[in-house]
Amino acid sequence: MFTSHLECPKCSAAYDAEQLQQLCVCGSPLLVKYDLKKVGANMSKEAVTRRSPDLWRYRELLPVKNQENIVTMGEGMTPLLKLDRLGQKIGMPNLYMKDEGVIPTGTFKARGAAVGVSRAKELGVKTLAMPTNGNAGGAWALYCAKAGIEAVIVMPKDAPVIPRSECAIAGVSLSLVNGLISDAGKIVAQAVKEHRWYDASTLKEPYRIEGKKTMGLELAEQFGWEMPDVVLYPTGGGVGLIGIYKALNELKELGWVKGKLPRLVAVQATGCAPIVRAWKAGAHESEFWENAATCAFGITVPKAIGDFLVLEAIYETNGCAVAISDQSTLAAESLLAKSEGAFVCPEGAATLAATLCLLDKGWIKPEERVVLLNTGCGIKYPETVHCNLPVLQPGDQLKEILEPINTF
Amino acid sequence: MFTSHLECPKCSAAYDAEQLQQLCVCGSPLLVKYDLKKVGANMSKEAVTRRSPDLWRYRELLPVKNQENIVTMGEGMTPLLKLDRLGQKIGMPNLYMKDEGVIPTGTFKARGAAVGVSRAKELGVKTLAMPTNGNAGGAWALYCAKAGIEAVIVMPKDAPVIPRSECAIAGVSLSLVNGLISDAGKIVAQAVKEHRWYDASTLKEPYRIEGKKTMGLELAEQFGWEMPDVVLYPTGGGVGLIGIYKALNELKELGWVKGKLPRLVAVQATGCAPIVRAWKAGAHESEFWENAATCAFGITVPKAIGDFLVLEAIYETNGCAVAISDQSTLAAESLLAKSEGAFVCPEGAATLAATLCLLDKGWIKPEERVVLLNTGCGIKYPETVHCNLPVLQPGDQLKEILEPINTF
Repeated sequence: MFTSHLECPKCSAAYDAEQLQQLCVCGSPLLVKYDLKKVGANMSKEAVTRRSPDLWRYRELLPVKNQENIVTMGEGMTPLLKLDRLGQKIGMPNLYMKDEGVIPTGTFKARGAAVGVSRAKELGVKTLAMPTNGNAGGAWALYCAKAGIEAVIVMPKDAPVIPRSECAIAGVSLSLVNGLISDAGKIVAQAVKEHRWYDASTLKEPYRIEGKKTMGLELAEQFGWEMPDVVLYPTGGGVGLIGIYKALNELKELGWVKGKLPRLVAVQATGCAPIVRAWKAGAHESEFWENAATCAFGITVPKAIGDFLVLEAIYETNGCAVAISDQSTLAAESLLAKSEGAFVCPEGAATLAATLCLLDKGWIKPEERVVLLNTGCGIKYPETVHCNLPVLQPGDQLKEILEPINTF
Repeated sequence: MFTSHLECPKCSAAYDAEQLQQLCVCGSPLLVKYDLKKVGANMSKEAVTRRSPDLWRYRELLPVKNQENIVTMGEGMTPLLKLDRLGQKIGMPNLYMKDEGVIPTGTFKARGAAVGVSRAKELGVKTLAMPTNGNAGGAWALYCAKAGIEAVIVMPKDAPVIPRSECAIAGVSLSLVNGLISDAGKIVAQAVKEHRWYDASTLKEPYRIEGKKTMGLELAEQFGWEMPDVVLYPTGGGVGLIGIYKALNELKELGWVKGKLPRLVAVQATGCAPIVRAWKAGAHESEFWENAATCAFGITVPKAIGDFLVLEAIYETNGCAVAISDQSTLAAESLLAKSEGAFVCPEGAATLAATLCLLDKGWIKPEERVVLLNTGCGIKYPETVHCNLPVLQPGDQLKEILEPINTF
């Protein structure tokens, strides 16, 4: 409704938002620009807070023109939880978690899919294709099914298996590849060229990020339009982090929030940390990470097309980038469940491990308002928890209080 | 805050709500009674709608006295979705689904666990025990972990496996039994007696139902305080259905809703249909169902302790009870995903199959406002979807648009 145009953040070229666009001719992703003066005149904080609890409450800051094109399953306004028990344990009285497990399809990918698919429908897309590490594919498959758009999805054969079921029941075309998301991406790029499909790969279309952006809008609203001090984000393609940064800047320009942006922290795995390596070198782009591997499969992205935007968000907010071992990630997953009852995905758990590490280094101060962004529910990753269980026969007795099960 | 006492719905005996109570001496479950005059004087529709989008917005109608005892992960106010594409396909312009997949732990069991565990904490419970078909166990395990209560859980070895991971990561005591939930129940009953634990079995404590009740409160609010015509509910222990009935009666007494209650439909599986058999016979109690088996594992309950309350809710609302074959349930699961992008659990899918059946019989009129209560997300049941997928090598091409995968 208030979209003015698409703009290249690298070469500043402008594009018509009413046409299907992919990358800029210079190879960079395109970002959606709004007429924020008009948005400000048509939208108030008070009106927003009275709307239904989903991401469409921010519709003036989203790219869908005609409300009839909205493809929604009620996604958004996920809980912001204060982690009091855990905070007490580790000496952080102002520790929070935004829980993106409580959303259709169980991960934050639903946000990108809801907005991306809605806008694709509005622009007349019939078939789209994308590579995925699993969860984005599952989400786009289901939203495409609802929209009546055909989807062609390629994912690594080692990706978590539950998203395969999401793709299968949605009835989309799904292939596995004996490689990483970068290999899936090459297969998709070739097919898209040949069949003239819409390429819905991360940041190769401009609207997925607008969906992810709503995490930042919600965080601001849930903190009473104040900024937390630090936000930690598990970073693969990095769209969520770029989106939060974009959202907070838009809110600043609207005058809805004031002061410094939170320091944004990109959390990666030691087995795949191209952004961390680039940040340590003070670089503005990352290099391909060879032999990438981690249990936090969603962040196994050896080279992100939006790496320069992630790094900009880190530098501009005085943030940082941290790599976490799988062992620390799994320990953090267990700690979150045992102290807060939250069964989170390994990617989300890595943000707690990073917090402990940054607290230890003094980079995070104990009293700061710190937000862990948990990107999805643990029930999509049952394989991260091992259990060896006694099997009783009917009529048996429980001998004694059984020892709690150790998970690793 | 406004609880007056606990009351037996069979013999009308009253019990002190400030003491831990289990069943009535007559063997019946106890229900929580409120001073609804005081509730009405202290709570308004307008105030409720301005509160945060979780089930605690109805705190005056819930049994927790001190807000500090609330154990919450942001559960409740799940989406009420209008199913337009599916409705058009089957000729029902006013078809809705309340989606309990969008809640912590991925099923409606989180509601019972949040309220049940909060009240148990308030009353000083240190250890509780329960049998489960899986999802309740997972939810109570995680909420107990957050509350610092020890939990002892017994579930059938054939129950879906993901809730095992929830119990394991929460660090509770979990055992499997080579039998049904009724066998698990006997083992728990014996252990509870021996160790003097709190028995948190379905309806053996009075507070779980208060959590489930909030589905009815939310439905009324989401329909603008009007009643839909029909609500279909997958029925195992039946607590959700009893809870919705209780909620709507409380709202009627408060004067917040008027007119006839929706006709409540208990949906069961042909492989385990004790309520359907009782309803067909005009009986007020059910009989144990031998050799119970269905893919909708959550409703494999051969004999529910609250059966007489379920049957009362059906009779009093001119509802009915329907048994659905596993084949129809799986077909409905696929239809919901392909038309609405909703990947639901088989129990939830059975309510669509029941709707088609009742529409066909003329019991449901095409234009009526009908609500499918989907009790959980499909991602907890990946085994209900089969897929045989091609594996490509890096550098391969997608030959053509692959055929959409058939799921069964």
